Amino acid sequence: MTERALQDLLEALRRLPGVGAKSAQRMAFHLLQHDREGGRRLASALQVADQRVRHCARCHTFTEDEVCATCLDPHRDARLLAVVETPADQAALERSGSFRGLYFVLMGRLSPLDGVGVRDIGIAPLLDRVGDGVIEEVILATSFTAEGEATAHVITQALAARGVKVTRLARGVPVGSELEYVDLSTIAHALSDRR
Amino acid sequence: MTERALQDLLEALRRLPGVGAKSAQRMAFHLLQHDREGGRRLASALQVADQRVRHCARCHTFTEDEVCATCLDPHRDARLLAVVETPADQAALERSGSFRGLYFVLMGRLSPLDGVGVRDIGIAPLLDRVGDGVIEEVILATSFTAEGEATAHVITQALAARGVKVTRLARGVPVGSELEYVDLSTIAHALSDRR
Repeated sequence: MTERALQDLLEALRRLPGVGAKSAQRMAFHLLQHDREGGRRLASALQVADQRVRHCARCHTFTEDEVCATCLDPHRDARLLAVVETPADQAALERSGSFRGLYFVLMGRLSPLDGVGVRDIGIAPLLDRVGDGVIEEVILATSFTAEGEATAHVITQALAARGVKVTRLARGVPVGSELEYVDLSTIAHALSDRR
Repeated sequence: MTERALQDLLEALRRLPGVGAKSAQRMAFHLLQHDREGGRRLASALQVADQRVRHCARCHTFTEDEVCATCLDPHRDARLLAVVETPADQAALERSGSFRGLYFVLMGRLSPLDGVGVRDIGIAPLLDRVGDGVIEEVILATSFTAEGEATAHVITQALAARGVKVTRLARGVPVGSELEYVDLSTIAHALSDRR
């Protein structure tokens, strides 16, 4: 194959998470045959995002400014800080409409098997952030997976001496689900955390 | 959300086939947090491919030249022409190592439900191509789906008056499969085409 440009495109597409050889081929075919405009827009969006998107100096989420709009919002309760793994998790909490505090986005979670240790996620900046004298409660909203639980555990220990209250999202039966189909460990937690 | 650059990136990623809101978010997070170099390479590969990749004047496949390397290869048998739907199908035939003729790539197949009619795939250029006086046999290697069969049917009719032999890939039991798990229509074809 002497078609260097096409090969380079296929290889670049395959670096995306969840994209294998077949998907890359399908994407390249679609862009070149049916949506060249979409390809140009993607190229430009990638470049603009690479130049402009950085981390908020206070909460570490993606932003184009020094400090993100959420951190600057005077209507939010600065005494509550929710710790989440990713901007997507932050967006999920926001959509629930039931949290009006501030956030800290770790941009990852502990995952020793993938080589992600305590220094690779934002725990040191989190400790700095919590020491602002305003925060009274840190709500750990990391995932309820082994890795998310380990992350929550490490943060709890690191914050133990800081004199702030540390809480964790409640585990329990998801709204709208039938008990019959809920896994046993979730039912056990829902029972022990009953109110 | 005031993060325009991030929103634009998410929307551009969602235009890719098979990418929904969640995958786009995962890709954007991965590129911005873990692989900015990959994002820049993808942007540049998209632009280079858009500028350089066009259709081969003889077989219609993607190429950076006027005529692709396969069509120019003097060792190939110019009397045989395999008609395929996409460059990926062409690559699959090549990998089989059992075809040494030339190709014609339709760059699509008939699909009335999606608004793809006879004029949207390369049937007219195929008729021109077949009239070169050298081609003796056209092998229809379109998919064995309703759409691929319809495409093969239309091409067979269009070539009927051209005095070239028109053949179709054999249908039958895939190599390595157990009869028990092969669908009935395939078994029926394998029986009627037995040799």
